[in-house]
Amino acid sequence: MPDTQHADSVGLVCPQFRHFDTPLALDCGVTLPSYDLCYETYGELNAARDNAVLVCHALSGDAHAAGFHDPEQRKPGWWDNCIGPGKPLDTRRFFVVCSNNLGGCNGSTGPLSVRPGTTHRYGPDFPFVTVRDWVQSQARLADALGIERWAAVMGGSLGGMQVLQWAIDFPDRVRHAIVIAAAPRLSTQNIAFNEVARQAIRSDPDFHDGHYADHGVVPERGLRLARMLGHITYLSDDVLHSRFGRELKEGKIQFNFGVEFQIESYLRYQGESFVNRFDANTYLLMTKSLDYFDPAADFEGDLTRAVSRCTARFLVMSFSSDWRFSPKRSREIVRALLDNDLDVSYVDIESALGHDSFLLPIPQYHKVLGAYFSRIEVGA
Amino acid sequence: MPDTQHADSVGLVCPQFRHFDTPLALDCGVTLPSYDLCYETYGELNAARDNAVLVCHALSGDAHAAGFHDPEQRKPGWWDNCIGPGKPLDTRRFFVVCSNNLGGCNGSTGPLSVRPGTTHRYGPDFPFVTVRDWVQSQARLADALGIERWAAVMGGSLGGMQVLQWAIDFPDRVRHAIVIAAAPRLSTQNIAFNEVARQAIRSDPDFHDGHYADHGVVPERGLRLARMLGHITYLSDDVLHSRFGRELKEGKIQFNFGVEFQIESYLRYQGESFVNRFDANTYLLMTKSLDYFDPAADFEGDLTRAVSRCTARFLVMSFSSDWRFSPKRSREIVRALLDNDLDVSYVDIESALGHDSFLLPIPQYHKVLGAYFSRIEVGA
Repeated sequence: MPDTQHADSVGLVCPQFRHFDTPLALDCGVTLPSYDLCYETYGELNAARDNAVLVCHALSGDAHAAGFHDPEQRKPGWWDNCIGPGKPLDTRRFFVVCSNNLGGCNGSTGPLSVRPGTTHRYGPDFPFVTVRDWVQSQARLADALGIERWAAVMGGSLGGMQVLQWAIDFPDRVRHAIVIAAAPRLSTQNIAFNEVARQAIRSDPDFHDGHYADHGVVPERGLRLARMLGHITYLSDDVLHSRFGRELKEGKIQFNFGVEFQIESYLRYQGESFVNRFDANTYLLMTKSLDYFDPAADFEGDLTRAVSRCTARFLVMSFSSDWRFSPKRSREIVRALLDNDLDVSYVDIESALGHDSFLLPIPQYHKVLGAYFSRIEVGA
Repeated sequence: MPDTQHADSVGLVCPQFRHFDTPLALDCGVTLPSYDLCYETYGELNAARDNAVLVCHALSGDAHAAGFHDPEQRKPGWWDNCIGPGKPLDTRRFFVVCSNNLGGCNGSTGPLSVRPGTTHRYGPDFPFVTVRDWVQSQARLADALGIERWAAVMGGSLGGMQVLQWAIDFPDRVRHAIVIAAAPRLSTQNIAFNEVARQAIRSDPDFHDGHYADHGVVPERGLRLARMLGHITYLSDDVLHSRFGRELKEGKIQFNFGVEFQIESYLRYQGESFVNRFDANTYLLMTKSLDYFDPAADFEGDLTRAVSRCTARFLVMSFSSDWRFSPKRSREIVRALLDNDLDVSYVDIESALGHDSFLLPIPQYHKVLGAYFSRIEVGA
């Protein structure tokens, strides 16, 4: 039986598109005259319109969070293990919405889109977008879908940052905020890794200052390096050790620059497959958005004050071996929320799998998520 | 008063060269017909010839460990804070030798050298060299200098690996082995970072399969990226935070791809300055040598058996915030040595400075080193 027909799968799904022609003033000072958002929905919005959950994606994510676009699709959406009938985010109870972020490369307006009134793509001229901009654009999508208030907004990593921003910017529109494997702002080391990834892309001769499409090329070398580097930071030292160790591809040292260790093969594969599915200009924009995110900055670095207007109930989760956004970073968020006497649950999940854990069906993790969702009240 | 005349400086020093024309059979199967080693010495070999200390350099090091090559030189040798009259490695008592590793790019035979019997450089055809090969070549240098037995062999990082190999391969020639911030073999994560650095260099269009010199270019982009990445792993998250935090170069977000955060400026500077002083083919060879180092491999992964022939006394040191070669890795060495009832001192130094700590004049660290050296007996 193909996965598309599994009882716990949302099955075949179709990306939807919504055009917005009210201009959107971005943080960077540029105003987008109009834009499209690509999104998917799973489950049904109930009559009370109080069972909608917004899922926010991370750095290289898209709107395809669950199910299959066609029966031949081998891998389901990126968070399929979490979203579906009977899964932690149970689509029999909740109406789930996931949209591709503005500036993305998977359906929403971004560098690959044709600039309104012209015949050419935005390319590197697509404006910088921030987490706050994304939340604004998602709020308009909520308006369009007739969702006044989300039962929950949920996301991991960069997605978790969007959740936090939602709770700050639209306290009346978020009942529950589920912030997973996130941080209230990047550490210096996080920014440093992003900068190396950006330089890898930008220094690739095929980048052409972002106008690579005009030259019929893609900065493959740079994208590959950026993704290889990313993957090292997504996984823990321990899981790399247990999965690959020092295992040799050919059983013995070859004394050449081919693949000697299995880990090299894994990284090269990850880099290679990314090149074919992600846009370099989008990658650059997403890493900048990560760097810029810092809701406390407007409050002299005081996160407690930054979240003082929040009214949502919070579930904050981290993973023990995550060194990209370590549990310590999640606890900074928890502390600021508690300082405001907000209702906060915090769970640090024991996992050896590093930052990637948030995407994986770790039993304890999914149990906590499922239990949390089951306690969210929804109407008929 | 210029540093060259400081009482605790070894002052002006001169690189020396030694030609070896006995062929050297390398681990990779290739035999080097002849080679030169560039080395420096500080202090005087005593009449008993029992006060010589070999200093082994790390990834991007060279023979210039202390003092100045000329009075105008601004920065002294790379371990000047540790080597000199009255310093931890006191040149009034010890005769210090430091050589550039074979395959290096600072005086010893390596990719930049002209291949014997030809008129062109080795370039990418220089054979792979291992830590064991380096120790063999250093042993010949010891022979040439009339040093039968080192009072101590000492090094940090990749240098520490050479120390361990010396103690294994030449138990009769090493009285004290000082292994600092090292590991008995690279972790999977270490190899992964090396692989990204190598791919950055090798995928640079200016690399030309290593024949970049023939094209009058240098794979600058790749070298820059490799070094930027390296620097992230040399420093702890904490020290990056305290030195740079999220400090902005222009005081506010610029929304462009120039330097926004000070950490970006630091990394770009480090990358840039490396391009002008290091050879890409050498960098590749050194990272492979790191990957290959694994003395336990010949003993079914049993480090205890690998060090069973050692007779040296050991000082093993690590730094609390070093995540490249964490204290845990040093303790693996310590455990294997203790299993063999060897005389081992182990000190983990509290330092926020990460892997780089081994190069820095941290008081407690230098105190331990100095005390250890002061207890090494030497003749007249």
